[in-house]
Amino acid sequence: MKIISSIQELQADIKAVKAKGKTIGFVPTMGALHAGHKSLVARSISENDFNVVSIFVNPTQFNNLSDLEKYPRNIERDAEMLGAIGCDLIFAPQSEDIYTEDELTGRFDFDFAGLDKVMEGKFRPGHFNGVVQIVSKLFNFVQPDKAYFGEKDFQQLAIIHYMVKALNINVEIVDCPIVREESGLAMSSRNERLTPEQRKYAAEISKVLFESRNFVPDLSPADLTVWVSGRINAIEGLKVEYFEIVDSENLRTVQTWEKPAVGCIAVFCGEVRLIDNVRFESMIN
Amino acid sequence: MKIISSIQELQADIKAVKAKGKTIGFVPTMGALHAGHKSLVARSISENDFNVVSIFVNPTQFNNLSDLEKYPRNIERDAEMLGAIGCDLIFAPQSEDIYTEDELTGRFDFDFAGLDKVMEGKFRPGHFNGVVQIVSKLFNFVQPDKAYFGEKDFQQLAIIHYMVKALNINVEIVDCPIVREESGLAMSSRNERLTPEQRKYAAEISKVLFESRNFVPDLSPADLTVWVSGRINAIEGLKVEYFEIVDSENLRTVQTWEKPAVGCIAVFCGEVRLIDNVRFESMIN
Repeated sequence: MKIISSIQELQADIKAVKAKGKTIGFVPTMGALHAGHKSLVARSISENDFNVVSIFVNPTQFNNLSDLEKYPRNIERDAEMLGAIGCDLIFAPQSEDIYTEDELTGRFDFDFAGLDKVMEGKFRPGHFNGVVQIVSKLFNFVQPDKAYFGEKDFQQLAIIHYMVKALNINVEIVDCPIVREESGLAMSSRNERLTPEQRKYAAEISKVLFESRNFVPDLSPADLTVWVSGRINAIEGLKVEYFEIVDSENLRTVQTWEKPAVGCIAVFCGEVRLIDNVRFESMIN
Repeated sequence: MKIISSIQELQADIKAVKAKGKTIGFVPTMGALHAGHKSLVARSISENDFNVVSIFVNPTQFNNLSDLEKYPRNIERDAEMLGAIGCDLIFAPQSEDIYTEDELTGRFDFDFAGLDKVMEGKFRPGHFNGVVQIVSKLFNFVQPDKAYFGEKDFQQLAIIHYMVKALNINVEIVDCPIVREESGLAMSSRNERLTPEQRKYAAEISKVLFESRNFVPDLSPADLTVWVSGRINAIEGLKVEYFEIVDSENLRTVQTWEKPAVGCIAVFCGEVRLIDNVRFESMIN
């Protein structure tokens, strides 16, 4: 397995792979890889001839410098895991090779039909502009046939699907299910920042989300929203930033259970911000 | 020369061309081709192995249904010209193959560092969103090595350069000079809609623009702006919508002649809206 930081070198390798007619699978990551990432890479390897993982803590998607600084990094351990499962290439560029000075001052702006204005977009202004820009850049560098994303970042995935469709980008987006720790806690690089005690509290998030499904369709989405937030806020050390039950496609808040919906949550566990989600199937067939 | 309307058929042809290692040159147009377009295609042919011209009157970049309806169309004559000079493929898709219903209702929005908010962007709200979206889609369909654009649409070109850089799109954008009629009138498909008398008035636009260069650096950009607008408004049948002298790169209005600038104008000649521009070199070396 090769680790490349130069864009030129990457592009030369990609060209050589394409010339041989091989398909390329791609998993963009910010490193600090866990079992969730591993499942994406394993799926990519099972479906493509040549597999690329990018490791880049993208500054433009952080709206909080402290969060950016504290984001865990461990490229040696990441490389070890990726080499062991059969990844072909790690692309780990430097920020100054990816962005011009102008781009870093955040002048780029997309607007995806309001998809980027709710939930994460509301609480992390500019976040999805940064995500979309880096994903576009990486797609253009790597030129993958398929790219793999986890459903933990549900809103991100909806926005990437929208972008790929709106621009007819020649990449197939593959949605991959959330991978959870034994306790139910959704895998996240940010979990590394939790104390053992916080980990116990954090595990309650998914328990409440799963339990909430039992109240459908008896409680309305609005009432269930209140119930979930109340239950999680009642747990020591947890503070809900938002919980919303939205249409799985357009991410608009739902009033009834007529269409497939997803409940998306962001919770502070101490200083660490965690997200998770749960699907609610449509009650009308 | 082949004329293709199906995206699938186009993509199969492009794949075959790429498999042979041929380079692809691309000229996106809205048809009603004139000598300006011809110069773009001729340059593309001189620099690439396989040359594609798209003909598509893109609805999402019109902010005025009457302008869309009145936009001249003449694909038979276009095809004749393109075949004669050696174009390989015309891609002439239908709107319903390019856009979903949602996309046609105009939910897509880019924001390019304010480049899209001035001049054409101010008077044709949504115009550049439509341009950028169709250019992105076409680039993804055609996958060209180089794409050719005319400098008559100066702002459009600045925005396309910005997009390609911001997203690291693998297409080289080639800027091509304005082609003018003998009278000095910038070539435009819209000129077809002018009466013989209007054509005479319209020819004055470029004359005033060229004359204005003689006042640099004696008049300030602000004073020269007033002079140009006044001169053109004094001509029968012409009404200036805007004239602005802007920095060639960031399109912000300039106060001095320190940096290379461009004077961009939109003028109504009866119902027909014409644009043109003139470059002012920097007065500081």
